[in-house]
Amino acid sequence: MSQLLPLVPSLKPFLEAYLPQSPTSTQSPVSRPFVTLTYAASLDSRIAEANGKQTAISHLETKTMTHYLRSRHDALLVGSGTAMADDPGLNCRYVEDVITTGGTPLIRPVVVDKNFQWNITERSRVVATARQGHGLGPFIIVCDGTRVKYPEKVAVVESINGKIIELSIDESGRFSWRDILSALIDEGIKSVMVEGGATIINDLLRRGSAFVDSLIVTIGPVYLGSQGVEVSPPSRVNLKDVTWWSGTRDSIMAARLTKA
Amino acid sequence: MSQLLPLVPSLKPFLEAYLPQSPTSTQSPVSRPFVTLTYAASLDSRIAEANGKQTAISHLETKTMTHYLRSRHDALLVGSGTAMADDPGLNCRYVEDVITTGGTPLIRPVVVDKNFQWNITERSRVVATARQGHGLGPFIIVCDGTRVKYPEKVAVVESINGKIIELSIDESGRFSWRDILSALIDEGIKSVMVEGGATIINDLLRRGSAFVDSLIVTIGPVYLGSQGVEVSPPSRVNLKDVTWWSGTRDSIMAARLTKA
Repeated sequence: MSQLLPLVPSLKPFLEAYLPQSPTSTQSPVSRPFVTLTYAASLDSRIAEANGKQTAISHLETKTMTHYLRSRHDALLVGSGTAMADDPGLNCRYVEDVITTGGTPLIRPVVVDKNFQWNITERSRVVATARQGHGLGPFIIVCDGTRVKYPEKVAVVESINGKIIELSIDESGRFSWRDILSALIDEGIKSVMVEGGATIINDLLRRGSAFVDSLIVTIGPVYLGSQGVEVSPPSRVNLKDVTWWSGTRDSIMAARLTKA
Repeated sequence: MSQLLPLVPSLKPFLEAYLPQSPTSTQSPVSRPFVTLTYAASLDSRIAEANGKQTAISHLETKTMTHYLRSRHDALLVGSGTAMADDPGLNCRYVEDVITTGGTPLIRPVVVDKNFQWNITERSRVVATARQGHGLGPFIIVCDGTRVKYPEKVAVVESINGKIIELSIDESGRFSWRDILSALIDEGIKSVMVEGGATIINDLLRRGSAFVDSLIVTIGPVYLGSQGVEVSPPSRVNLKDVTWWSGTRDSIMAARLTKA
């Protein structure tokens, strides 16, 4: 696990307007959490060189930003592909300022995994992280009837206070974002940071401001090539309230989506 | 033809190190011109929403930058698709500072058009522009034996002091960049700004520093969608000497390519 650099001070004011605010000031309807969509991509909008291949794109200073963003959200959400490819800790390692911002360094991992393909075991990093008190057990969103098929994985998840959440899928085999976000608000999750993978990002982008409150994109100065895993929604998506930040190597865009 | 905004003053120092310098200080071998590769793309690395569809991506202030960059090069090069889609003027409309920088507002358009598909006529904007003294006649690079097939188009091109340059193609039907750039240096062109389209950009990117001296990419904060015309080379391309600039809406990256 690499050491994080300190947060570059100018990032905090840059990001602040795009982060979930305290409940009294939030404009979000209470029917869903505040949703921040965030990812790091190459100049050619690839988040990895190939499916399942973890690819370093962003500089360490923007990696620190990811952990700072996690410290400002109740949950982080990824697809099963991301959970399986990276064996990620899915926790928050940004601890400075926690008390002054009133937040907690513990963020709830949420994994969208229709068929429960994620082979979560005692050896998974997320489990070790939770047992050490450095993270929370994951909420895994699976489709109705999946839970009973995997008693061993369910036992692991529940042993670290994680939870299996069953939701129904539509005729095309997909969850509805309304159902997912509604399930999270029922769990007391008021803000969620969506981190990938590409399928989830592209699907949320096309939904526009109905499901996404903020968009934070890190662009790393490299081309990963046309065989890479791509962020590109099915059709045009317009943004508003755009601002840019640039660091040692990367550029970061913060924006809001318009209505789809 | 839209009015250009004044050049944002901070752009000049930002760009300077990436521009062709006077011949005594240039590091380029004399076997080819200095090559600046430049384009504007969406966040998902699309330069147009569809083939042949001109799509506004960049803010007017970065459009001014394009004309400033043209004022610093002897030639601008585009593929036939770009020439046909946009009916572009292919000239330089940035005139301020011309005398002090020792440049000329007249830039040579070079169109790579293997089969001479570009239907250049008296009504083409590039022809009107040249007749009015606001631009130069284009050099059109076609494959051997093409010139005799299109006497009318050749006559139009030559009437505005343009030229048809015949080059051979390889067994896969492509020109070699070595031949193209060698032909340009033979014409006294010491610097060329390559502006597109996607086929040309992707092909040059993969060649790395052997054929590209500078890369200047404008990123507009919009997604054009997966059906758009994409910049993404066939495999990974690494950059160096990366710097970023951000304006009202866009971010601009200037960089150099590493050796392919």
